[in-house]
Amino acid sequence: MTGEITTLPDIDPLLLRILPNPRPGTPPPSSKLVFGKTFTDHMLTVRWTSAGGWEAPVIGPYAPLSLEPSAVVLHYANALFEGLKAYRSNTGRITLFRPDMNMSRMNRTAERIALPTFSGPALIELISELVRLDASWIPQEPGHSLYVRPTLIGTQNALGVGPSTSALLFVICSPVGPYYKGGFKPIALLATTKHVRAAPGGIGSYKLAANYAPGIIPQLEAAMEGYAQNLWLWGPEHFLTEVGTMNLFVVLRREDGATELVTPPLNDIILPGVTRDSVLSLARSHSSTPLPGLPENFIVSERAITMPELVSASKAGRLLEVFGAGTAAIVCPVDRIGYLGEDIIVPTGERGMGPVSEVMYREIVGRQTGVIPSDWAWVVKE
Amino acid sequence: MTGEITTLPDIDPLLLRILPNPRPGTPPPSSKLVFGKTFTDHMLTVRWTSAGGWEAPVIGPYAPLSLEPSAVVLHYANALFEGLKAYRSNTGRITLFRPDMNMSRMNRTAERIALPTFSGPALIELISELVRLDASWIPQEPGHSLYVRPTLIGTQNALGVGPSTSALLFVICSPVGPYYKGGFKPIALLATTKHVRAAPGGIGSYKLAANYAPGIIPQLEAAMEGYAQNLWLWGPEHFLTEVGTMNLFVVLRREDGATELVTPPLNDIILPGVTRDSVLSLARSHSSTPLPGLPENFIVSERAITMPELVSASKAGRLLEVFGAGTAAIVCPVDRIGYLGEDIIVPTGERGMGPVSEVMYREIVGRQTGVIPSDWAWVVKE
Repeated sequence: MTGEITTLPDIDPLLLRILPNPRPGTPPPSSKLVFGKTFTDHMLTVRWTSAGGWEAPVIGPYAPLSLEPSAVVLHYANALFEGLKAYRSNTGRITLFRPDMNMSRMNRTAERIALPTFSGPALIELISELVRLDASWIPQEPGHSLYVRPTLIGTQNALGVGPSTSALLFVICSPVGPYYKGGFKPIALLATTKHVRAAPGGIGSYKLAANYAPGIIPQLEAAMEGYAQNLWLWGPEHFLTEVGTMNLFVVLRREDGATELVTPPLNDIILPGVTRDSVLSLARSHSSTPLPGLPENFIVSERAITMPELVSASKAGRLLEVFGAGTAAIVCPVDRIGYLGEDIIVPTGERGMGPVSEVMYREIVGRQTGVIPSDWAWVVKE
Repeated sequence: MTGEITTLPDIDPLLLRILPNPRPGTPPPSSKLVFGKTFTDHMLTVRWTSAGGWEAPVIGPYAPLSLEPSAVVLHYANALFEGLKAYRSNTGRITLFRPDMNMSRMNRTAERIALPTFSGPALIELISELVRLDASWIPQEPGHSLYVRPTLIGTQNALGVGPSTSALLFVICSPVGPYYKGGFKPIALLATTKHVRAAPGGIGSYKLAANYAPGIIPQLEAAMEGYAQNLWLWGPEHFLTEVGTMNLFVVLRREDGATELVTPPLNDIILPGVTRDSVLSLARSHSSTPLPGLPENFIVSERAITMPELVSASKAGRLLEVFGAGTAAIVCPVDRIGYLGEDIIVPTGERGMGPVSEVMYREIVGRQTGVIPSDWAWVVKE
């Protein structure tokens, strides 16, 4: 009909086809798990074309993808991903941690490189189905989980640089052990003045594949100098931005005696991390619902912070903690920052983690594992 | 032997295996060619592992690749490419244009994301073999060529962000028609102050996949406003950097009467283009070996140039030409630049291309097609 507006199909969980893996594998012993090396029996795939929209979702055996050598993802990095975790309690209850946050970020990132967007609730439903199907792969030991990796790639088989006319969304799952084995291990950072992770007007606030490979060499360079990760700076002022692939938090004692938790504000160069948001939400709730272990006079600031401010706080004995925040580690304490040829020593406390990070770790893990009831835990299976 | 230094194998053309395509295709009529949509009968693949180095090269039928869903290239953009052209003269002579430049840039780019490097001459030898095998696919009409696309991707099947432990180098070929059909078509540029292509300390000088998908949305936004491509700026000074996916040249009449060809100097934010280098070399040779059509008092400058300088030159009637330079178009004249809500009109002459760009086009095409003898044309087949 002339003038009729047609809407292309969104992802529809009602159309899901499940092809069970005829040769299911055996999960390795939890003690042998290495991040992202072992995958479960099944994967979810959903294809998209610009002419037909999203096709019927399929959960089938974990298997290689067939991609034309001209597929744009291999040439122009039309690719993005998310990372979230499913937890299994000792009662068998399975939850996902804040998957709605991942879905909205994934859609926002897809728009940035002209890949198709989709219904977040629909993909959560499909991921839940996948996780239920492979539930036996979720390790139950404390600190263990199933890492869920949704990925979206452009599959157009033509080399023109433009919006991909076809795409593939897939979700794979990998059982993972705890980030810290046998106590917290603070890491040393190199505040790099040679490389930048992102720039204003660039893509640093999107979870694009393009933001990751470029960080490998800077990380190796930091390692050569004895530092575990980069502290990414920006501009002649040396603004602190992120830590490796994590968001950054700094705890300062202000001159008025208050304890201030600082993280750089969301803008073009900061990834809106789910753990970052969780830390901020918990820290802000402290004024109405006190969290045991946090100081009374506690201020939460999303504000710019520079290396000179950090150095001066350190010299005045007012630098209390520095930590990274991300899905893999939850919080990652920092004990040393190399900057312009000198090391700034950061307190970490006796247990390897400062008081604020320790509270954040406890509160987030509690909500992930169900010890602390929370609407951040989305029930996949009771 | 203890202490022995072992070197992993480099790419070795002597190990090449050729598996002829049992079902060769038919090249489409040259008039129907669309850039990068049709591929020849064969492709070159060379696998690499961190443990074993480069494996034996294979030229086999053009066919899909099998990639694990965990392959790092799909998640972290461990990918890079090159683009070069093979030309076939009416005597059947086949040449590649300056492939040594592509090889050195490809190796430099591979190092930047911890992908393996290789012998450039070895890969040129293998590409030559591939081009000879698929020589019937090279259109002979003027302005036509075979576009050769070497690509290198990380294929490690594990999600850790680090140097990929395996890689695949592949080369595919696509017959292409002339960029300009029926006369030069100058394009309009939008000097964008919203997006940046690259930043100091970033990856803009490498031909990484990661530099391309992020440019798609800015290009669509420019198109919505009636401009063909972005003119990428940098910094509060609004330095000119690149045009879409091409290098940038500006021709000015200086106040002392000289004609100045300006291009931004190579640094972190400028891709070292082969055509850029060819334009500079030719322009510089003019002082010793005059090129007909270029003015006598002609100065070649690799120097920074800002939008305010361009605006002021335009107002004074001293802005003579603006053009992009790249493998696809060779030179691409610009007739209009949108900047801060106003349009700067750029002269293009009666034939749609200013005098300097026209000379550059003539001289480069002459060397590509063999009309002008040059050591830039590498003979693949006499």
